[in-house]
Amino acid sequence: MKISDIENAIVSINDFPKKGIVFRDITPLFLDPIKINFIIDEMAKLLQSIDFDVIVAPESRGYLFAVPLALKLNKPFVMVRKPNKLPRAKLSIDYELEYGHNILEIHKNDIKPNSKVLIVDDLLATGGTSCAIQEMIKQLDSLVVAHMYLIELEGLIKDQRLIGKVYSLIKFK
Amino acid sequence: MKISDIENAIVSINDFPKKGIVFRDITPLFLDPIKINFIIDEMAKLLQSIDFDVIVAPESRGYLFAVPLALKLNKPFVMVRKPNKLPRAKLSIDYELEYGHNILEIHKNDIKPNSKVLIVDDLLATGGTSCAIQEMIKQLDSLVVAHMYLIELEGLIKDQRLIGKVYSLIKFK
Repeated sequence: MKISDIENAIVSINDFPKKGIVFRDITPLFLDPIKINFIIDEMAKLLQSIDFDVIVAPESRGYLFAVPLALKLNKPFVMVRKPNKLPRAKLSIDYELEYGHNILEIHKNDIKPNSKVLIVDDLLATGGTSCAIQEMIKQLDSLVVAHMYLIELEGLIKDQRLIGKVYSLIKFK
Repeated sequence: MKISDIENAIVSINDFPKKGIVFRDITPLFLDPIKINFIIDEMAKLLQSIDFDVIVAPESRGYLFAVPLALKLNKPFVMVRKPNKLPRAKLSIDYELEYGHNILEIHKNDIKPNSKVLIVDDLLATGGTSCAIQEMIKQLDSLVVAHMYLIELEGLIKDQRLIGKVYSLIKFK
C-alpha cells in the first residue's frame, strides 16, 4: 500500500455540491479496511514528534479518522458537533462560510485548561472550520499544537490562520 | 474493564433534547480510548458467529463505532448520510419520525447485490432509523443479517420490525 493507492481511491466529482466545485469523495476508502489502517498508520508516523493531549474533530467526517487515530495513539477524543446535539455545558461558535454561516459546539468540561490539542478532519480547504475550532480551544484556555488532514486543497488562503503544525497525507490542486 | 464501567461512564441527561426525554450521552466514553477498545472487543465477540459482508451505519454517531469495528473485523464500511452529502449514484429513503420526517441516503453501488449486512449504531430506541436502512438494503437486493448497538432502550415497540439478530451491550429501561 502506498499513498498513491489512497489518492487513486478518492473519487473526484465535478460540480458537486454545486457548479464549479470538485468534490473529493472519500467514502470509497472505507470499502477497504486495509486502506484505512494504512492512512491511520501514516498519520501516526507524522505525529511521532508531536506532544499532544487530546484529539478534537468536527462532525461527521472528522470522526471517521479521529476515532481510529485516537485508538491507535491512545488519546482521548472530544467531538465538535452541530448545534443542539451536545447535552452538557458547552461552548458554541458561530462563524462565516462562503455562503451563510455555521455553528459548532463542544462540551467545555472535556477540554482541560492548558491542553495541547490535535485537530483532525478529512479535508482542509479554506480552513474556516479549523479556525473556528481553534478559537473555541483558545477560549477554553488550551492550545492547538497540530492539525491532521487526509486531504489538503492547495492554493486557498488559509495558512496564516492555522496555528501549530499542519499535516496532510494528500494534496490536491 | 467491565460492561458496568461503560454503563457508568454514559451520562444520563433529563429533558434533553426536550422535556420528558432522558438523553444518554456517550461522548464521555471517547475520553478514554481503553473504554472504546473494550466496547469494540465486546461487539466483535458477539459477532463471532455472524457471517456478514459489510457494515452499514448512519451519520454521525454510528460512525464512531462502525469505523473501529470495521477495522477490527476487516470488513468494508458503507456510510448512510443525511441528504445532499453523497455525490455518487444513490438511493434515498424518506421515513417518519415521532415529529416530522427524516431522509437518509446511501451510495447504491457500494452495496453489492446479495450482500449480508450488519447495521451499527450507538443507540436503538424505536428502531425507525434502522428500519429505514433495512428498507434501503432490501431495495439493493441485499439482506440485513444483524444489528449491533451500544445501547438499547427497552420497552419501545420495535422488535417485530428489525430483521436478523439484534445485539446491544447495554440496556436501559
